[in-house]
Amino acid sequence: MSSRLLEQLIDAFRVLPGVGQKSAQRMAYHVLERERSGGQRLSDALAEAIEKIGHCARCRDFSETEVCATCASGSRDAHLLCAVESPADRLAIEQATGYRGLYFILQGRLSPLDGIGPRELGLDTLATRLAEGEVQELIIATNPTVEGEATAHYLAQLARQHQVRPSRLAHGVPLGGELEYVDRGTLSHAFGSRSEVPQ
Amino acid sequence: MSSRLLEQLIDAFRVLPGVGQKSAQRMAYHVLERERSGGQRLSDALAEAIEKIGHCARCRDFSETEVCATCASGSRDAHLLCAVESPADRLAIEQATGYRGLYFILQGRLSPLDGIGPRELGLDTLATRLAEGEVQELIIATNPTVEGEATAHYLAQLARQHQVRPSRLAHGVPLGGELEYVDRGTLSHAFGSRSEVPQ
Ligand SMILES: [Zn+2]
Ligand SMILES: [Zn+2]
Repeated sequence: MSSRLLEQLIDAFRVLPGVGQKSAQRMAYHVLERERSGGQRLSDALAEAIEKIGHCARCRDFSETEVCATCASGSRDAHLLCAVESPADRLAIEQATGYRGLYFILQGRLSPLDGIGPRELGLDTLATRLAEGEVQELIIATNPTVEGEATAHYLAQLARQHQVRPSRLAHGVPLGGELEYVDRGTLSHAFGSRSEVPQ
Repeated sequence: MSSRLLEQLIDAFRVLPGVGQKSAQRMAYHVLERERSGGQRLSDALAEAIEKIGHCARCRDFSETEVCATCASGSRDAHLLCAVESPADRLAIEQATGYRGLYFILQGRLSPLDGIGPRELGLDTLATRLAEGEVQELIIATNPTVEGEATAHYLAQLARQHQVRPSRLAHGVPLGGELEYVDRGTLSHAFGSRSEVPQ
Protein backbone atom coordinates (compact mmCIF):
# COMPACT_ATOMS: atom_id res chain seq x y z
CA MET A 1 0.00 0.00 0.00
CA SER A 2 1.49 3.32 -1.04
CA SER A 3 0.05 5.44 1.75
CA ARG A 4 0.02 4.86 5.49
CA LEU A 5 -3.05 7.07 5.90
CA LEU A 6 -4.91 5.13 3.23
CA GLU A 7 -4.06 1.86 4.95
CA GLN A 8 -5.27 3.32 8.22
CA LEU A 9 -8.55 4.45 6.61
CA ILE A 10 -9.21 1.03 5.05
CA ASP A 11 -8.54 -0.56 8.40
CA ALA A 12 -10.90 1.86 10.15
CA PHE A 13 -13.78 1.04 7.77
CA ARG A 14 -13.65 -2.58 8.88
CA VAL A 15 -15.23 -1.59 12.19
CA LEU A 16 -18.56 -1.37 10.29
CA PRO A 17 -20.82 -4.44 10.29
CA GLY A 18 -20.51 -6.63 7.18
CA VAL A 19 -17.48 -4.74 5.87
CA GLY A 20 -14.46 -6.92 5.00
CA GLN A 21 -11.10 -5.97 3.52
CA LYS A 22 -12.40 -5.71 -0.05
CA SER A 23 -15.42 -3.52 0.78
CA ALA A 24 -13.31 -1.37 3.08
CA GLN A 25 -10.86 -0.77 0.22
CA ARG A 26 -13.68 0.11 -2.14
CA MET A 27 -15.14 2.53 0.41
CA ALA A 28 -11.81 4.28 0.96
CA TYR A 29 -11.12 4.63 -2.77
CA HIS A 30 -14.66 5.80 -3.45
CA VAL A 31 -14.47 8.53 -0.81
CA LEU A 32 -11.02 9.73 -1.93
CA GLU A 33 -11.80 9.60 -5.64
CA ARG A 34 -15.31 10.90 -5.78
CA GLU A 35 -16.79 11.85 -2.43
CA ARG A 36 -14.39 13.94 -0.38
CA SER A 37 -17.09 16.34 0.81
CA GLY A 38 -19.46 13.45 1.63
CA GLY A 39 -16.62 11.72 3.45
CA GLN A 40 -15.95 14.84 5.48
CA ARG A 41 -19.67 15.01 6.37
CA LEU A 42 -19.51 11.38 7.51
CA SER A 43 -16.43 12.09 9.62
CA ASP A 44 -18.15 15.05 11.30
CA ALA A 45 -21.47 13.22 11.79
CA LEU A 46 -19.67 10.27 13.41
CA ALA A 47 -17.69 12.44 15.80
CA GLU A 48 -20.74 14.49 16.77
CA ALA A 49 -23.01 11.47 17.24
CA ILE A 50 -20.44 9.62 19.34
CA GLU A 51 -19.86 12.65 21.51
CA LYS A 52 -23.46 13.71 22.01
CA ILE A 53 -25.76 10.70 21.65
CA GLY A 54 -26.44 8.92 24.91
CA HIS A 55 -29.46 7.03 26.23
CA CYS A 56 -32.84 8.45 27.24
CA ALA A 57 -33.29 8.25 31.01
CA ARG A 58 -36.89 7.02 30.57
CA CYS A 59 -36.82 4.53 27.68
CA ARG A 60 -33.08 3.87 27.08
CA ASP A 61 -33.40 4.72 23.37
CA PHE A 62 -30.60 6.68 21.76
CA SER A 63 -31.07 10.35 22.56
CA GLU A 64 -29.04 13.53 22.50
CA THR A 65 -31.17 14.93 25.33
CA GLU A 66 -31.69 13.65 28.91
CA VAL A 67 -35.21 12.52 27.95
CA CYS A 68 -35.95 11.71 24.29
CA ALA A 69 -38.57 13.51 22.21
CA THR A 70 -40.99 10.54 22.30
CA CYS A 71 -40.90 10.24 26.10
CA ALA A 72 -41.17 14.02 26.51
CA SER A 73 -44.11 14.27 24.11
CA GLY A 74 -47.47 14.91 25.78
CA SER A 75 -49.33 13.38 22.84
CA ARG A 76 -48.41 9.72 23.39
CA ASP A 77 -50.60 7.31 25.39
CA ALA A 78 -48.72 6.71 28.65
CA HIS A 79 -50.97 3.75 29.55
CA LEU A 80 -49.23 1.65 26.88
CA LEU A 81 -45.58 0.67 27.10
CA CYS A 82 -43.92 -1.43 24.38
CA ALA A 83 -40.67 -3.26 25.24
CA VAL A 84 -38.31 -3.94 22.32
CA GLU A 85 -34.79 -5.31 22.11
CA SER A 86 -33.19 -2.54 20.07
CA PRO A 87 -33.64 0.98 18.69
CA ALA A 88 -33.95 -0.61 15.23
CA ASP A 89 -36.93 -2.68 16.43
CA ARG A 90 -38.51 0.42 17.95
CA LEU A 91 -38.09 2.24 14.65
CA ALA A 92 -39.59 -0.69 12.71
CA ILE A 93 -42.72 -0.66 14.93
CA GLU A 94 -43.01 3.11 14.80
CA GLN A 95 -42.82 3.12 11.00
CA ALA A 96 -45.09 0.12 10.39
CA THR A 97 -47.88 0.53 12.92
CA GLY A 98 -50.10 3.31 14.19
CA TYR A 99 -48.87 2.74 17.76
CA ARG A 100 -49.16 5.89 19.86
CA GLY A 101 -47.96 4.60 23.24
CA LEU A 102 -44.47 4.74 24.72
CA TYR A 103 -41.46 2.43 24.42
CA PHE A 104 -38.85 0.77 26.55
CA ILE A 105 -35.66 -0.30 24.77
CA LEU A 106 -33.91 -3.23 26.44
CA GLN A 107 -30.71 -2.79 24.38
CA GLY A 108 -30.36 -6.57 24.24
CA ARG A 109 -32.05 -9.74 25.52
CA LEU A 110 -31.45 -12.01 28.47
CA SER A 111 -28.40 -14.13 27.75
CA PRO A 112 -26.85 -15.49 30.97
CA LEU A 113 -23.94 -17.10 29.10
CA ASP A 114 -22.90 -13.67 27.78
CA GLY A 115 -23.36 -12.09 31.19
CA ILE A 116 -26.50 -10.24 30.12
CA GLY A 117 -29.00 -10.35 32.98
CA PRO A 118 -31.92 -8.18 34.15
CA ARG A 119 -29.55 -5.42 35.31
CA GLU A 120 -27.88 -5.10 31.88
CA LEU A 121 -31.32 -4.70 30.26
CA GLY A 122 -32.30 -1.94 32.68
CA LEU A 123 -35.11 -3.99 34.19
CA ASP A 124 -34.73 -2.17 37.51
CA THR A 125 -35.61 1.05 35.67
CA LEU A 126 -38.50 -0.77 34.00
CA ALA A 127 -39.77 -2.11 37.36
CA THR A 128 -39.72 1.41 38.83
CA ARG A 129 -41.64 2.60 35.78
CA LEU A 130 -44.29 -0.11 36.13
CA ALA A 131 -44.57 0.57 39.88
CA GLU A 132 -45.51 4.21 39.13
CA GLY A 133 -48.96 2.87 38.21
CA GLU A 134 -49.55 4.75 34.97
CA VAL A 135 -48.75 1.86 32.61
CA GLN A 136 -51.73 -0.49 32.12
CA GLU A 137 -50.41 -2.76 29.37
CA LEU A 138 -46.85 -3.90 28.66
CA ILE A 139 -46.62 -4.90 25.00
CA ILE A 140 -43.72 -7.34 24.80
CA ALA A 141 -42.17 -7.12 21.33
CA THR A 142 -38.94 -9.05 21.81
CA ASN A 143 -37.80 -11.15 18.86
CA PRO A 144 -39.29 -14.67 18.46
CA THR A 145 -35.96 -16.38 19.14
CA VAL A 146 -35.10 -18.62 22.09
CA GLU A 147 -33.49 -15.78 24.04
CA GLY A 148 -36.18 -13.33 22.99
CA GLU A 149 -38.89 -15.71 24.24
CA ALA A 150 -37.07 -16.20 27.55
CA THR A 151 -36.85 -12.43 27.90
CA ALA A 152 -40.56 -12.12 27.07
CA HIS A 153 -41.40 -14.66 29.78
CA TYR A 154 -39.39 -12.70 32.33
CA LEU A 155 -41.01 -9.41 31.32
CA ALA A 156 -44.52 -10.90 31.56
CA GLN A 157 -43.82 -11.98 35.14
CA LEU A 158 -42.43 -8.55 35.98
CA ALA A 159 -45.56 -6.90 34.56
CA ARG A 160 -47.91 -9.13 36.57
CA GLN A 161 -45.98 -8.36 39.76
CA HIS A 162 -46.98 -4.74 39.21
CA GLN A 163 -50.58 -5.43 38.17
CA VAL A 164 -49.77 -4.52 34.59
CA ARG A 165 -51.32 -6.58 31.76
CA PRO A 166 -48.61 -8.21 29.61
CA SER A 167 -49.29 -8.82 25.91
CA ARG A 168 -47.29 -10.31 23.08
CA LEU A 169 -47.34 -9.60 19.34
CA ALA A 170 -49.66 -11.92 17.40
CA HIS A 171 -48.39 -14.78 15.32
CA GLY A 172 -47.43 -13.51 11.95
CA VAL A 173 -43.87 -12.58 12.77
CA PRO A 174 -41.93 -15.53 11.29
CA LEU A 175 -40.35 -17.80 13.91
CA GLY A 176 -36.59 -17.36 14.24
CA GLY A 177 -36.78 -14.11 12.30
CA GLU A 178 -35.60 -10.66 13.29
CA LEU A 179 -38.28 -8.00 13.76
CA GLU A 180 -36.16 -5.44 12.02
CA TYR A 181 -36.42 -7.34 8.71
CA VAL A 182 -40.13 -8.14 8.76
CA ASP A 183 -42.13 -6.36 6.06
CA ARG A 184 -44.36 -3.50 7.19
CA GLY A 185 -47.66 -5.21 6.44
CA THR A 186 -46.87 -8.34 8.46
CA LEU A 187 -45.49 -6.34 11.33
CA SER A 188 -48.47 -4.00 11.37
CA HIS A 189 -50.89 -6.94 11.35
CA ALA A 190 -49.00 -8.75 14.11
CA PHE A 191 -48.94 -5.61 16.19
CA GLY A 192 -52.66 -5.03 15.76
CA SER A 193 -53.65 -8.57 16.74
CA ARG A 194 -51.39 -8.88 19.78
CA SER A 195 -52.88 -11.08 22.51
CA GLU A 196 -52.73 -11.05 26.26
CA VAL A 197 -50.12 -13.42 27.68
CA PRO A 198 -52.01 -16.25 29.46
CA GLN A 199 -51.15 -17.07 33.08
CA MET B 1 -36.48 9.04 14.43
CA SER B 2 -35.85 10.11 17.99
CA SER B 3 -32.56 11.91 17.44
CA ARG B 4 -31.60 14.48 14.83
CA LEU B 5 -27.91 13.56 15.12
CA LEU B 6 -28.72 9.89 14.59
CA GLU B 7 -30.72 10.73 11.48
CA GLN B 8 -27.82 12.85 10.24
CA LEU B 9 -25.36 9.98 10.85
CA ILE B 10 -27.53 7.43 9.00
CA ASP B 11 -27.81 9.87 6.12
CA ALA B 12 -24.04 10.41 6.06
CA PHE B 13 -23.32 6.66 5.84
CA ARG B 14 -25.25 6.54 2.57
CA VAL B 15 -22.36 8.27 0.84
CA LEU B 16 -20.51 4.93 0.93
CA PRO B 17 -20.80 2.65 -2.12
CA GLY B 18 -23.44 -0.08 -1.83
CA VAL B 19 -24.90 1.34 1.38
CA GLY B 20 -28.67 1.91 1.33
CA GLN B 21 -31.00 3.14 4.06
CA LYS B 22 -31.17 -0.21 5.87
CA SER B 23 -27.40 -0.80 5.95
CA ALA B 24 -26.77 2.80 6.95
CA GLN B 25 -29.14 2.36 9.88
CA ARG B 26 -27.41 -0.85 10.93
CA MET B 27 -24.00 0.83 10.73
CA ALA B 28 -25.11 3.78 12.85
CA TYR B 29 -26.69 1.55 15.51
CA HIS B 30 -23.69 -0.77 15.52
CA VAL B 31 -21.24 2.08 16.07
CA LEU B 32 -23.34 3.70 18.80
CA GLU B 33 -24.16 0.45 20.59
CA ARG B 34 -20.90 -1.41 20.41
CA GLU B 35 -18.11 0.44 18.64
CA ARG B 36 -17.83 4.02 19.82
CA SER B 37 -14.04 3.95 19.96
CA GLY B 38 -13.84 2.26 16.54
CA GLY B 39 -16.28 4.85 15.21
CA GLN B 40 -14.13 7.65 16.56
CA ARG B 41 -11.10 6.07 14.87
CA LEU B 42 -13.02 5.98 11.60
CA SER B 43 -14.03 9.63 11.97
CA ASP B 44 -10.42 10.65 12.59
CA ALA B 45 -9.01 8.46 9.80
CA LEU B 46 -11.52 9.90 7.31
CA ALA B 47 -10.76 13.50 8.23
CA GLU B 48 -7.00 12.96 8.11
CA ALA B 49 -7.07 11.02 4.83
CA ILE B 50 -9.31 13.60 3.14
CA GLU B 51 -7.09 16.43 4.31
CA LYS B 52 -3.70 14.90 3.58
CA ILE B 53 -4.02 12.36 0.77
CA GLY B 54 -3.44 13.82 -2.68
CA HIS B 55 -1.96 12.37 -5.86
CA CYS B 56 1.67 11.43 -6.54
CA ALA B 57 3.23 13.84 -9.02
CA ARG B 58 4.90 10.95 -10.89
CA CYS B 59 2.29 8.17 -11.04
CA ARG B 60 -0.97 9.85 -9.91
CA ASP B 61 -1.58 7.18 -7.26
CA PHE B 62 -2.97 8.30 -3.91
CA SER B 63 -0.13 9.65 -1.83
CA GLU B 64 0.34 11.78 1.24
CA THR B 65 3.71 12.94 -0.08
CA GLU B 66 4.62 14.86 -3.27
CA VAL B 67 6.08 11.66 -4.74
CA CYS B 68 4.78 8.29 -3.48
CA ALA B 69 6.96 5.66 -1.81
CA THR B 70 6.91 3.37 -4.87
CA CYS B 71 8.05 6.10 -7.25
CA ALA B 72 10.67 7.32 -4.77
CA SER B 73 12.04 3.82 -4.21
CA GLY B 74 15.42 3.14 -5.82
CA SER B 75 14.73 -0.61 -5.87
CA ARG B 76 12.07 -0.67 -8.61
CA ASP B 77 12.88 -1.27 -12.29
CA ALA B 78 12.38 2.10 -13.99
CA HIS B 79 12.50 0.51 -17.45
CA LEU B 80 9.04 -0.95 -16.90
CA LEU B 81 5.93 1.18 -16.51
CA CYS B 82 2.51 -0.35 -15.95
CA ALA B 83 -0.57 1.76 -16.71
CA VAL B 84 -3.73 0.90 -14.76
CA GLU B 85 -7.12 2.55 -14.46
CA SER B 86 -7.32 2.83 -10.67
CA PRO B 87 -5.37 2.54 -7.42
CA ALA B 88 -7.38 -0.62 -6.71
CA ASP B 89 -6.09 -2.19 -9.94
CA ARG B 90 -2.53 -1.18 -9.05
CA LEU B 91 -2.95 -2.81 -5.65
CA ALA B 92 -4.36 -5.99 -7.21
CA ILE B 93 -1.32 -6.31 -9.52
CA GLU B 94 1.13 -5.49 -6.75
CA GLN B 95 -0.40 -8.16 -4.49
CA ALA B 96 -0.85 -10.86 -7.14
CA THR B 97 2.31 -10.65 -9.23
CA GLY B 98 6.03 -10.30 -8.66
CA TYR B 99 6.12 -7.10 -10.72
CA ARG B 100 8.98 -4.82 -9.68
CA GLY B 101 8.59 -1.99 -12.19
CA LEU B 102 6.75 1.31 -11.75
CA TYR B 103 3.11 2.30 -12.29
CA PHE B 104 1.04 5.00 -13.87
CA ILE B 105 -2.50 5.37 -12.55
CA LEU B 106 -4.91 6.84 -15.10
CA GLN B 107 -7.66 7.44 -12.52
CA GLY B 108 -10.24 6.48 -15.14
CA ARG B 109 -10.49 5.48 -18.81
CA LEU B 110 -11.22 7.36 -21.99
CA SER B 111 -14.92 8.11 -22.12
CA PRO B 112 -15.68 11.02 -24.46
CA LEU B 113 -19.39 11.01 -23.60
CA ASP B 114 -18.52 11.66 -19.94
CA GLY B 115 -16.00 14.32 -20.89
CA ILE B 116 -13.03 12.13 -19.97
CA GLY B 117 -10.31 12.64 -22.52
CA PRO B 118 -6.49 12.30 -22.57
CA ARG B 119 -6.05 15.39 -20.39
CA GLU B 120 -8.31 14.02 -17.61
CA LEU B 121 -6.23 10.82 -17.53
CA GLY B 122 -2.99 12.77 -17.19
CA LEU B 123 -1.69 11.53 -20.55
CA ASP B 124 0.34 14.72 -20.99
CA THR B 125 2.25 13.74 -17.83
CA LEU B 126 2.59 10.20 -19.19
CA ALA B 127 3.90 11.50 -22.54
CA THR B 128 6.54 13.60 -20.76
CA ARG B 129 7.50 10.54 -18.76
CA LEU B 130 7.86 8.36 -21.87
CA ALA B 131 9.84 11.11 -23.60
CA GLU B 132 12.43 11.03 -20.81
CA GLY B 133 13.73 7.84 -22.42
CA GLU B 134 14.09 5.64 -19.36
CA VAL B 135 10.93 3.59 -19.88
CA GLN B 136 11.44 0.71 -22.35
CA GLU B 137 8.12 -1.12 -22.00
CA LEU B 138 4.67 0.23 -21.24
CA ILE B 139 2.55 -2.57 -19.79
CA ILE B 140 -1.05 -1.61 -20.53
CA ALA B 141 -3.29 -3.12 -17.85
CA THR B 142 -6.56 -1.32 -18.46
CA ASN B 143 -9.72 -3.36 -17.95
CA PRO B 144 -10.93 -5.57 -20.83
CA THR B 145 -14.07 -3.49 -21.36
CA VAL B 146 -14.96 -1.44 -24.45
CA GLU B 147 -13.67 1.78 -22.90
CA GLY B 148 -10.67 0.04 -21.38
CA GLU B 149 -9.73 -1.39 -24.80
CA ALA B 150 -10.10 2.02 -26.45
CA THR B 151 -7.85 3.48 -23.78
CA ALA B 152 -5.34 0.66 -24.33
CA HIS B 153 -5.29 1.38 -28.06
CA TYR B 154 -4.60 5.05 -27.40
CA LEU B 155 -1.84 4.25 -24.91
CA ALA B 156 -0.16 1.82 -27.32
CA GLN B 157 0.01 4.55 -29.97
CA LEU B 158 1.40 7.01 -27.45
CA ALA B 159 4.08 4.50 -26.44
CA ARG B 160 5.14 3.88 -30.06
CA GLN B 161 5.41 7.63 -30.67
CA HIS B 162 8.11 7.63 -27.99
CA GLN B 163 9.85 4.44 -29.13
CA VAL B 164 8.51 2.59 -26.09
CA ARG B 165 7.33 -1.04 -26.54
CA PRO B 166 3.64 -1.39 -25.59
CA SER B 167 2.40 -4.69 -24.13
CA ARG B 168 -0.96 -5.92 -22.94
CA LEU B 169 -1.87 -8.49 -20.28
CA ALA B 170 -2.36 -12.01 -21.70
CA HIS B 171 -5.75 -13.51 -22.22
CA GLY B 172 -6.93 -15.00 -18.98
CA VAL B 173 -8.58 -11.94 -17.57
CA PRO B 174 -12.28 -12.66 -18.25
CA LEU B 175 -13.79 -10.42 -20.90
CA GLY B 176 -16.06 -7.72 -19.51
CA GLY B 177 -14.67 -8.29 -16.03
CA GLU B 178 -13.03 -5.86 -13.65
CA LEU B 179 -9.35 -6.42 -12.86
CA GLU B 180 -9.95 -5.67 -9.22
CA TYR B 181 -12.12 -8.77 -8.82
CA VAL B 182 -9.98 -11.27 -10.71
CA ASP B 183 -8.50 -13.98 -8.49
CA ARG B 184 -4.78 -13.75 -7.78
CA GLY B 185 -3.78 -16.84 -9.75
CA THR B 186 -5.48 -15.75 -12.96
CA LEU B 187 -4.17 -12.23 -12.63
CA SER B 188 -0.64 -13.40 -11.92
CA HIS B 189 -0.73 -15.74 -14.93
CA ALA B 190 -2.14 -13.05 -17.21
CA PHE B 191 0.50 -10.61 -16.05
CA GLY B 192 3.31 -13.09 -16.62
CA SER B 193 2.21 -13.98 -20.19
CA ARG B 194 1.55 -10.46 -21.39
CA SER B 195 2.27 -9.97 -25.07
CA GLU B 196 3.57 -7.13 -27.16
CA VAL B 197 0.83 -5.14 -28.86
CA PRO B 198 1.11 -5.84 -32.61
CA GLN B 199 1.35 -2.91 -35.03
ZN1 LIG C 1 -37.20 8.08 25.81
ZN1 LIG D 1 4.00 7.55 -7.44
